[in-house]
Amino acid sequence: METLLDSHEKAPICGPALDSLQRAWSDQPAIETQEQIIRDLVGASSEDAFVFTSSGAEAVTQVLWSVYMEAARKEGKCHFLASALEDLPTMQMLKRLEELGCFAKIIPVTPSGEIDLKKLPELISPRTALLSVQLAQALTGVIQPIEELVRITKERNILLHLDASYAVGKIYFSFADLGADYLTFSGETLHASPASGALFAKPGAPLSPLIMGGKGLRGGPLDLPAFLSLAAASGQASLSLERMSLEVARLRHLFETEMKRACNAQVLFADSYRLPNVSCLFFPGVHQEALLYLLSRKQIDASIGGRYPQHLHRLLQASHMDLSIAESSLSFAFSRMTTEAQILQAIPLIADAVATLRRISEEL
Amino acid sequence: METLLDSHEKAPICGPALDSLQRAWSDQPAIETQEQIIRDLVGASSEDAFVFTSSGAEAVTQVLWSVYMEAARKEGKCHFLASALEDLPTMQMLKRLEELGCFAKIIPVTPSGEIDLKKLPELISPRTALLSVQLAQALTGVIQPIEELVRITKERNILLHLDASYAVGKIYFSFADLGADYLTFSGETLHASPASGALFAKPGAPLSPLIMGGKGLRGGPLDLPAFLSLAAASGQASLSLERMSLEVARLRHLFETEMKRACNAQVLFADSYRLPNVSCLFFPGVHQEALLYLLSRKQIDASIGGRYPQHLHRLLQASHMDLSIAESSLSFAFSRMTTEAQILQAIPLIADAVATLRRISEEL
Repeated sequence: METLLDSHEKAPICGPALDSLQRAWSDQPAIETQEQIIRDLVGASSEDAFVFTSSGAEAVTQVLWSVYMEAARKEGKCHFLASALEDLPTMQMLKRLEELGCFAKIIPVTPSGEIDLKKLPELISPRTALLSVQLAQALTGVIQPIEELVRITKERNILLHLDASYAVGKIYFSFADLGADYLTFSGETLHASPASGALFAKPGAPLSPLIMGGKGLRGGPLDLPAFLSLAAASGQASLSLERMSLEVARLRHLFETEMKRACNAQVLFADSYRLPNVSCLFFPGVHQEALLYLLSRKQIDASIGGRYPQHLHRLLQASHMDLSIAESSLSFAFSRMTTEAQILQAIPLIADAVATLRRISEEL
Repeated sequence: METLLDSHEKAPICGPALDSLQRAWSDQPAIETQEQIIRDLVGASSEDAFVFTSSGAEAVTQVLWSVYMEAARKEGKCHFLASALEDLPTMQMLKRLEELGCFAKIIPVTPSGEIDLKKLPELISPRTALLSVQLAQALTGVIQPIEELVRITKERNILLHLDASYAVGKIYFSFADLGADYLTFSGETLHASPASGALFAKPGAPLSPLIMGGKGLRGGPLDLPAFLSLAAASGQASLSLERMSLEVARLRHLFETEMKRACNAQVLFADSYRLPNVSCLFFPGVHQEALLYLLSRKQIDASIGGRYPQHLHRLLQASHMDLSIAESSLSFAFSRMTTEAQILQAIPLIADAVATLRRISEEL
């Protein structure tokens, strides 16, 4: 029998199909099974708090907001630390916290693209509440020395937040083993809905809602399609971790070897501990924006910094590289779907574009 | 030609179909056309700021947060007012603002379910920053005296926020004409995706991001499917406003007339200015939870307060009704899809259930 009168709270969502989906999945055990897939991908334990958010940006904002509410306001620990490599949500939220009376310090980076561990201790004070850092940088591919950061923050009683958006699904790690207090990531970089994100927190780490109105840690209804897309993408990413660390790393090596040979390119951060799928290349004598344009016309997606004003240029200069390198580099990323045939097809196209630009420069 | 190498920022979303959707709609004019449909529904002018949020809860949180950042912190106007009828996001956010050093006052309600306009002036102080009020209440259906609230808040230099989740798509109004500073609503109550919400603000009204990381007023990527669902639902709702105010109001009248006749029910708030689709009925001698249970078994969705702990019971007591009325009332809501046949089918089923419960009470 059909429902005769509409309820106030159960208005059908986007037509009958999605509505039945919503009803079918509204039982808690099914939700928990899907949540477990997301937990498994990052190795979170069952005691760790989990918040499904609308984006990585929301997750980052909620972590910094929670530390402000609990540590800064209640315990007077109002100093915040972040690396010079962080994304816009972290940087903007630090600015917001400064408006609210906190102090933010930016940790410099070494030429290898890592947080400068020698300079970190002198930036810490007894009032330091939190260190917020990207587990791995999107454009340079460099993975931060997390063990050392955990040791230092534990010693000095500082909370540690890892923004894992570019590491999750690319390298093995376990939130349970890492020793960090918070882990956040965006679903967008995991091939899930762009309206998905995740926040994990250790038991005891401060955690408050950012969006009010719920019984738990987030107000508003659960976005079931986005949540299920994150669970599905997490399952796929878990299955592909081995491929990432073996086959994708092999393809990246092939790509870099051929780029060195064909274009006289230099591989940046080659000696750092890097993501297996990112290649940051310096093309001497070629302007990055001109090359990016030529490549985009050949359907090759490289990057100098995406939606955020997180330009490769700035990152390379922060890593003490010459302006000539910072202006002539591009970052390439491979996914688990990238094939050797695609790499071999791309190499002569890139070499052509580089040669064209070098010829134009010489003629000027 | 296919894309050869994945970009960092443009990972495919939920497979190819949604990805092409995202690309197809990523040009700004198409987005603006859809946004205009949402603006048209609430009569917002092109100068009013618009934020697409993940829920009504997020929109409400952002309004109160913005007023805190700008008015409370910068101008010392740290008093906030809300009616006793508000939803959980408003109430929880007021509590949060009190933790941050603000003061919240709750305005009592008259027996007609409206804000008590006589008591309002004495709750206002020179430090009052904001009055937050539901344009219409979901369960009682009562519409607040907005003209008077606008007059009073303008006179006293107070910002006015209208939570229009239950009014939008049900009654004609125009944000441009109302004179309020903020308008928010949830997409869920409009048959859009539950992951959608909207915030409108007048030029000059304080507005800051809640979720950091964007260039505009909200970080994180646009949730395009949810956004398009809100635009589509807004278009449908605009087309149905006449049906709401004529046909649905007629069906509600038929329902109430028959309920009075068949069950000796009393129509609550019958003399108030009400939404055309809500009927709040008092069934003497019947306990509301028992009736709700029997009706749900007959596939009739009534309500005593939904997901939020916003029980009809509490609302009726706030409106000075006896406990006997507060415990024996149910709220019914009709949509634009409700038909006369459904109403006529439901009436004997409700009458049966009421008679059954009265018989049981008498036998006890």
